[in-house]
Amino acid sequence: MRIAIASDHAGFDLKQDIARWLADEGHVVTDCGPQSNARVDYPDFGYKLALAVTGGASDFGIAICGSGIGISIAVNRHPKMRCALVNEPLSAMLAREHNDANAIALGARLGGIDMAKACIAAFMVGRFEGGRHEGRVDKLSSPPFVPQTVS
Amino acid sequence: MRIAIASDHAGFDLKQDIARWLADEGHVVTDCGPQSNARVDYPDFGYKLALAVTGGASDFGIAICGSGIGISIAVNRHPKMRCALVNEPLSAMLAREHNDANAIALGARLGGIDMAKACIAAFMVGRFEGGRHEGRVDKLSSPPFVPQTVS
Repeated sequence: MRIAIASDHAGFDLKQDIARWLADEGHVVTDCGPQSNARVDYPDFGYKLALAVTGGASDFGIAICGSGIGISIAVNRHPKMRCALVNEPLSAMLAREHNDANAIALGARLGGIDMAKACIAAFMVGRFEGGRHEGRVDKLSSPPFVPQTVS
Repeated sequence: MRIAIASDHAGFDLKQDIARWLADEGHVVTDCGPQSNARVDYPDFGYKLALAVTGGASDFGIAICGSGIGISIAVNRHPKMRCALVNEPLSAMLAREHNDANAIALGARLGGIDMAKACIAAFMVGRFEGGRHEGRVDKLSSPPFVPQTVS
């Protein structure tokens, strides 16, 4: 799959480890930054991730900050993004099945690399169930939740 | 405190239990619905919660759906909302300290009433640390993340 990944400084090391793992697994990884663990602001990189996914360059996104909270809010500001903050695989799978999520957020200071991998693996296995969930997902990208200017 | 609460059908029972507990604790609770466990769409009630909080009628909001994922995305579509999906108290406290969160989302099918209460209690105790976090929080309500029409 084509996977975009972004973090802040707190999530940088986990981002590097996950990106390497995904590439080793044969996926095409787009690294939206940052390129070091120097202090940055998570909204900037959540925004880059949203553009990488909504622009079609990536199938889904992985967003990482210290707790996952800040960057998940940032990604979800984009009306076409559905980013699920998860810390275990069941939530990651439900995010796909029920919410057709196109991104997951992880908290690098709260969970470790193996749990992160398990969440990402579950996310990739999950398939949107459609049906009754479809109208709800559509509403997330419809008025009053849009229009939103994203240039 | 003045607390708004909203759910979908999957979160209805937990919403009722939490609302009763908060009222017993002396808080002023605004119930944004629904009023039964009939099937509804979580975006509609996430939107009502966002209006209750951003309109100033409530100090913060509690959003509940089956996993917490869908309604957390819905609430975060509002540019003035910062909703943290949490399933344990440390995340709830960090959401306040680092992200100045004004809502938390809970998954009624993934966590029980006592964990929900512990998350809410931690959220209410937490205080925004400001400082380096302030600029990041401000960015979540600034271009390119706004303007967004919410009527």
